[in-house]
Amino acid sequence: MRKVAVIAVGYTKVSEHWNLSIRELFTEAALMALNEANIDQIDALYIGNMFSGYCQHQEHLGVLMADYIGLKSPPAVKIEAAGASGGMALREGVQAVASGLHDLVVVGGVEKMTDVLSPDITSALAMATDQEYEAFIGATFVALNAMVKRAYQHKYGVSDELIATLPVHCHEMASKNPYAQHPFKITVEQVLSSPFIAEPLRLLECSPVGDGAAVLMLCPLEKAKNFTDAPIEIAGMGAATDTIALYQRDDLTTFKATIEAAEIAYKMAHIKPDDVDVAEIHDAFSITGIISLEDLGFFEKGKAAEAVSEGQIAPGGKVAVNTFGGLKARGHPVGATGVYQAVEVVKQLRGDAGKNQVDGAEIGLTQNVGGVGGTVTVHIFRRLG
Amino acid sequence: MRKVAVIAVGYTKVSEHWNLSIRELFTEAALMALNEANIDQIDALYIGNMFSGYCQHQEHLGVLMADYIGLKSPPAVKIEAAGASGGMALREGVQAVASGLHDLVVVGGVEKMTDVLSPDITSALAMATDQEYEAFIGATFVALNAMVKRAYQHKYGVSDELIATLPVHCHEMASKNPYAQHPFKITVEQVLSSPFIAEPLRLLECSPVGDGAAVLMLCPLEKAKNFTDAPIEIAGMGAATDTIALYQRDDLTTFKATIEAAEIAYKMAHIKPDDVDVAEIHDAFSITGIISLEDLGFFEKGKAAEAVSEGQIAPGGKVAVNTFGGLKARGHPVGATGVYQAVEVVKQLRGDAGKNQVDGAEIGLTQNVGGVGGTVTVHIFRRLG
Repeated sequence: MRKVAVIAVGYTKVSEHWNLSIRELFTEAALMALNEANIDQIDALYIGNMFSGYCQHQEHLGVLMADYIGLKSPPAVKIEAAGASGGMALREGVQAVASGLHDLVVVGGVEKMTDVLSPDITSALAMATDQEYEAFIGATFVALNAMVKRAYQHKYGVSDELIATLPVHCHEMASKNPYAQHPFKITVEQVLSSPFIAEPLRLLECSPVGDGAAVLMLCPLEKAKNFTDAPIEIAGMGAATDTIALYQRDDLTTFKATIEAAEIAYKMAHIKPDDVDVAEIHDAFSITGIISLEDLGFFEKGKAAEAVSEGQIAPGGKVAVNTFGGLKARGHPVGATGVYQAVEVVKQLRGDAGKNQVDGAEIGLTQNVGGVGGTVTVHIFRRLG
Repeated sequence: MRKVAVIAVGYTKVSEHWNLSIRELFTEAALMALNEANIDQIDALYIGNMFSGYCQHQEHLGVLMADYIGLKSPPAVKIEAAGASGGMALREGVQAVASGLHDLVVVGGVEKMTDVLSPDITSALAMATDQEYEAFIGATFVALNAMVKRAYQHKYGVSDELIATLPVHCHEMASKNPYAQHPFKITVEQVLSSPFIAEPLRLLECSPVGDGAAVLMLCPLEKAKNFTDAPIEIAGMGAATDTIALYQRDDLTTFKATIEAAEIAYKMAHIKPDDVDVAEIHDAFSITGIISLEDLGFFEKGKAAEAVSEGQIAPGGKVAVNTFGGLKARGHPVGATGVYQAVEVVKQLRGDAGKNQVDGAEIGLTQNVGGVGGTVTVHIFRRLG
């Protein structure tokens, strides 16, 4: 396998982009990356997206986007794995370069969720669950995650107050990120007095609905210096699945797929969790983030929320997490999220992360989740030289 | 790049499967392939599918299927490129093995179109076109292909009678294929007296709506003999895109993406069009097939229909085409079609094609189209030893 590097990135602000269509949104992010690498033609295009059929009645997104950004006939395809669509798109892009088939590959993610009404987005999100055995009987996506929080609190006796410190941390980070959807601070008291979406999950524990697009440009590591002074190596990657439905799992308080995907990725990169300087984790809900911090090996089971409350995931702590705000505050345009995470880790490793820059960050990690832990991808990035 | 082989295949009859859900349909095909290879665990799963969000309100199809067929946590993902979803899924599967990342990879395609009413399928098919600039102003998918037929007949003066010989040929082939959706013969007169769907395309020039699933199991060529006595090498592959919308093209009578994809695939396999013994081409409409026969290099522009009428694509002719009935008569479960094509070519090269077996077939080709030529994949298969 050839080694693969990220040579350029692009992204839009996550927001309610009423004035942009899905193709315009993606184009903005893609042209930013193409311009950064000073390239106007690529070899292949991968697009992570979940909802374009549902929200825009538009499939065949690969060719649409290749066409619209002015590329000349590259292979182009949409990659769908619910909330892990972006992470899986990155995985496919890496394989395309690693195999030797392609040199210049663009991996993008895009989601435009505000083209439909709010109840429709609830239906759309339920497509990530088992439609016949979960959604059909009335479980919303939030409700399934609420069961996970309930089970976790029952097993480990962790309080709402402690769990609420994760969204508070994410908003603190987002307050210094100009492209975050919610760039403002919140308090634990505000989290705990916000309304329940599905008990025990409250509004300020849930990632918002928004639109956004993010793009990475990949090439073989050995050629990366032709395009940038600061290539970032993709040093490891793992992906794994679990049962799609919760009722088939032995334990709701851990995501087996995260553990497996991380193990593969750590092994490939020859690192341990303690080596990670910066991480972007999938905090679609507060509890998803807490469980992920544990399953990635950063903290012991049942201990992550306490660690968050102690500042251990802030810049300068044990591992700097979600330094651009995470899903909660940067925003969660579903199929684009995994690509945003990678963009952010690349910016940290380049020393280009603004006010939340982690000094001397060398190794970064992204964890992207589809469904309630049904699909998980983990990628590990390394700064060179 | 490692060389890649097909070691097992599975498929269902294409039909209106009222009694099977999409997961049951896929499971039937997947278990057939797993049983043939005598394997119960794989390294990764790719699923070509276009309509599961629209027709089943189910995305996250990768993990759903991995789970339902009893696999233990492989990376699993849905690949979408409209009618070329199956071909693109195969491409991703080949890359996964070629890169060295995985050894045992399952590539499947599945589509269950009969879960929604007929007008909804017309809307769903339009998701392959440019929603904002084609579908929005009222063009159906058939109507766009009808314009292609009109332009082709205007340019080359080819009659309806000659073009009708392609669906007649496909039904002749399907009449000996027990898993074809429409295993019966038709005549040119029947084609020409069938009602217009979108003038000048008549009912019997259009592929039907149906349900089906097909599966290929891949592994590195060097390990293939551990699983089968008759591995089939994937010797070449190419993919290309064109503009998604027709109004942006210089010429409606040729699919540039087919020409480019085929050129790449022929070069990789070190063959010429004349070397191909059997081919499965994308005859979603009669005219799509006719144009494809030309763009693949089998016949000169404007001459394919005449060649078909002379029997040149029948077994024993210049190149045996759509020997299982093609999209027109085997059926066209959209996201599965590209995988069916590959299954059929593999069966021919194994000498396992029943009454339409082409004696001594060594090299096979599949061409899979998304939209009106917007995405095209071409794969070339070779019998070993």
